[in-house]
Amino acid sequence: MPVDAPWTRWIEQNEQALIDRLREAVEIPSVSGEASYRPHVHRMGQWLHDQLVKLGAEIRAVNVGQQELEGQTLDLPPVLVGSLGSDPKKETILLYGHYDVQPALMSDGWKHEPFTLTHDKETDRLYGRGSSDDKGPILGWLNVIQAHKETDTEMPVNLKFCFEGMEESGSEGLEELVVKETKGEFKDVSATCISDSYWLGTTKPCLTNGLRGLSYFSVSISGPGADLHSGVHGGVVHEPMTDLFALFSKLVTPQGKILIPGINDKVAPLTPEERKLYEALDMTVADLEGAVGGKVVISDDKVDALMARMRYPSLSIHGVEGAFSTPGAKTVIPASVKGKFSIRLVPDLEPEEVGKLVEKYLEDEFAKLGSKNSFRVEMLHGGKPWVSSVDHWNFRAATKATELVYGQTPNFMREGGSIPITLTFAEALGKNVMLFPSTSAVSRARSRTTKADLLTHSSRLVSVAVGRGDDGAHSTNEKLDKSNFITGSIALGQYLHEVPAAAAAAAAGEGQQQ
Amino acid sequence: MPVDAPWTRWIEQNEQALIDRLREAVEIPSVSGEASYRPHVHRMGQWLHDQLVKLGAEIRAVNVGQQELEGQTLDLPPVLVGSLGSDPKKETILLYGHYDVQPALMSDGWKHEPFTLTHDKETDRLYGRGSSDDKGPILGWLNVIQAHKETDTEMPVNLKFCFEGMEESGSEGLEELVVKETKGEFKDVSATCISDSYWLGTTKPCLTNGLRGLSYFSVSISGPGADLHSGVHGGVVHEPMTDLFALFSKLVTPQGKILIPGINDKVAPLTPEERKLYEALDMTVADLEGAVGGKVVISDDKVDALMARMRYPSLSIHGVEGAFSTPGAKTVIPASVKGKFSIRLVPDLEPEEVGKLVEKYLEDEFAKLGSKNSFRVEMLHGGKPWVSSVDHWNFRAATKATELVYGQTPNFMREGGSIPITLTFAEALGKNVMLFPSTSAVSRARSRTTKADLLTHSSRLVSVAVGRGDDGAHSTNEKLDKSNFITGSIALGQYLHEVPAAAAAAAAGEGQQQ
Repeated sequence: MPVDAPWTRWIEQNEQALIDRLREAVEIPSVSGEASYRPHVHRMGQWLHDQLVKLGAEIRAVNVGQQELEGQTLDLPPVLVGSLGSDPKKETILLYGHYDVQPALMSDGWKHEPFTLTHDKETDRLYGRGSSDDKGPILGWLNVIQAHKETDTEMPVNLKFCFEGMEESGSEGLEELVVKETKGEFKDVSATCISDSYWLGTTKPCLTNGLRGLSYFSVSISGPGADLHSGVHGGVVHEPMTDLFALFSKLVTPQGKILIPGINDKVAPLTPEERKLYEALDMTVADLEGAVGGKVVISDDKVDALMARMRYPSLSIHGVEGAFSTPGAKTVIPASVKGKFSIRLVPDLEPEEVGKLVEKYLEDEFAKLGSKNSFRVEMLHGGKPWVSSVDHWNFRAATKATELVYGQTPNFMREGGSIPITLTFAEALGKNVMLFPSTSAVSRARSRTTKADLLTHSSRLVSVAVGRGDDGAHSTNEKLDKSNFITGSIALGQYLHEVPAAAAAAAAGEGQQQ
Repeated sequence: MPVDAPWTRWIEQNEQALIDRLREAVEIPSVSGEASYRPHVHRMGQWLHDQLVKLGAEIRAVNVGQQELEGQTLDLPPVLVGSLGSDPKKETILLYGHYDVQPALMSDGWKHEPFTLTHDKETDRLYGRGSSDDKGPILGWLNVIQAHKETDTEMPVNLKFCFEGMEESGSEGLEELVVKETKGEFKDVSATCISDSYWLGTTKPCLTNGLRGLSYFSVSISGPGADLHSGVHGGVVHEPMTDLFALFSKLVTPQGKILIPGINDKVAPLTPEERKLYEALDMTVADLEGAVGGKVVISDDKVDALMARMRYPSLSIHGVEGAFSTPGAKTVIPASVKGKFSIRLVPDLEPEEVGKLVEKYLEDEFAKLGSKNSFRVEMLHGGKPWVSSVDHWNFRAATKATELVYGQTPNFMREGGSIPITLTFAEALGKNVMLFPSTSAVSRARSRTTKADLLTHSSRLVSVAVGRGDDGAHSTNEKLDKSNFITGSIALGQYLHEVPAAAAAAAAGEGQQQ
């Protein structure tokens, strides 16, 4: 049965006004990664603050400090923290989203001015930076709140808000704030809903219940006092590059098998139930080949390929610092090089534990080389994997809402990437966290690969590609299908309406799991 | 017996005037590698042309075309081609040198203005860019010619000149010219003397009779259509970096042993006589450790270490293009990478032959990886090794001169590096070529590692280091000991005086070898 209520009708009937509000948001180029755009990020924070207040929410713009960027000291954009409603008889849902965006220039290959929302009537798509990531989803919540207000419909839950402006640049200052607010604003939170991800494919709704963690390593090998000429010293000295290649060739096989003892043993075993989840997923090996832009998918089996991404660890060699890296031909012997690689983590792999295993293994293997060069390995940073049971009332409510609004049972999926703040919410609040995408994968634009982006996002890079093959040209054109914006808003709202019953049933003891 | 003749006395008595001429030359910043300095290079060519003409030489400034540099089309500096004397009864010696220099800025760490010759009276050293490389040696020839002119001493040989202004930037246009002039200006050349190298150490005179060749390779491995995010696709695809590390780990051992079948077999066997040459060389393993700035010399045996540099092939991995190469932590999976390595060649290894062996081996090894990525290997360029018999009258004349002037028999040595034009002279003219250094190793300054420099020079990079440990700071301060300038000039002149007898003896059938 389709959802039909005064508030849903109001959303459908006021579609144009809601698109116009999205247009206002997109027109503010709140790029968090570039110093010159920082005033716009603050302006965007103010705009969102005012919108929420106008809808009756109590909002604080929390100053989370400063940062050094491009040689300047900049105020970090405020984190908007607040609430709507405080009825002790209702569940309290914490909503997370971000109002900053990735950079975008016409010269990157946009068809339309990226900071002007362009409604393509033919495809009924809304093009513009932030339309999908993540202004669209945030405004989806505003749509829901306004619809209830305009139609005098009582909100079924209390809401808490946590909207940041630094997500594209490492979420600086956010973790400390969340931890602090666990005893404050977020004290009574029953569950968290993050709407900053995407469906796996283009047609099948998804709920995300897992993310891989990360351990990132830098291995330094040094010998000579300065770069040498390979004519003069080639053959005379132990070369750091030779040692590095010998060492890194022992990390992983071309088939992706990690060779570091102890890593694979610690992966939680696959259950038949879990395997069924991957079999049900709306993606083929051909889709994956399209996503990566080449026929280089290791496994020809869809389930194996998806599990390699979602539930098994992986090791990637990213590059070498200190060696010759530009076009042309230099005959240099680099004196000191740093090899960089990282391992994606899944339960039950802990970053610290993985760090110890890697350190021990590389030290043993380096000793075997019999080189007089010096060697050092350090773990630059680590993030734990996150997996939530989909058997929690939070997921049940979203499942029910999805079934009602889209007429389909959602796929449950785990992400290959890492969104550290998810784990912070889960651990700091001790309550269930769910990623509730309201937008299809292809709506997300390719992002610049800033460090922050790469460490916090998996969404955009895959979204570029799904169904696009290697057509990178369009990947810049971030858009949101109007249907995702309108129907997506209704799905988010319906989820809130399903929370009370789902929570009550769980409280009554039906398979509650944390 | 020390050399004593009117022309040698004249050089000693006019020392200051000769130093002042060197000062004039150093004051022209003839940097060939930077477009903005090009007018100075032409000015230096004109200055040298005028000096030679003033001394009675017939000189043509040959235009060898244009080049693209920093987006500009520039006239190449002229090659000065000419002669002094044409007595059919005399041998004809071709002299090669270059009047361009490496860049130099005070900010690089010079103690004195690099383009102002500074005479340090305490150490009696002449500091300035080009003082040793290669304006000092060229002016050494001018000193010899002028001394003969001023003292009415007959020149013992006919001279041919080939002075270029692009040596620090790849000697563009020179090879074609030399080949062309074999039927012209250089038709009657009996032997060639290149004075653009250095002694192995600081006290023992050397003659250079060999240079290693070079085969430079680029290996491309590609898979995905664009760079991927390691969270999303790590474990799903064959990663080009993983393949590259697996492949390059099979090129050479950390002990420098080349693993490509067929390479080591083709190295000319070591004879007991040749081994004696290395045993005689004025260098210890400690010197080599000082030269490289670290205790990373593979062999603890001096002879093995020197032979690794001078008479055996070596393989160095220079870097990776297309991967993450800057500081920090990016979780990128590079879609397409190029690994660069090169092999230094010695007799009897030919570049083409080595290219085939490398290609075959890498294709076989890549196939073993079972990767779906694509692979391509190309040889970017190759240069043959050069070795000359030291038993030729050209070397005998220089040996005799060295014994007379320095009171020591010179060491014969081979260079680890490559100076392609040497081979051009040897092959195009079909006559003996000798490298006659008149300056000690430490006089040469460290050069910027431009491609041209790296492909054509070994001298400066080692010279920096010999006896300097890892003290890079002073390496910028190129200097020429006054004694090397004055005594060195006398040695060069005495060599010319020893040519007739040595050549006659050879002609008379005493151990002539070509």
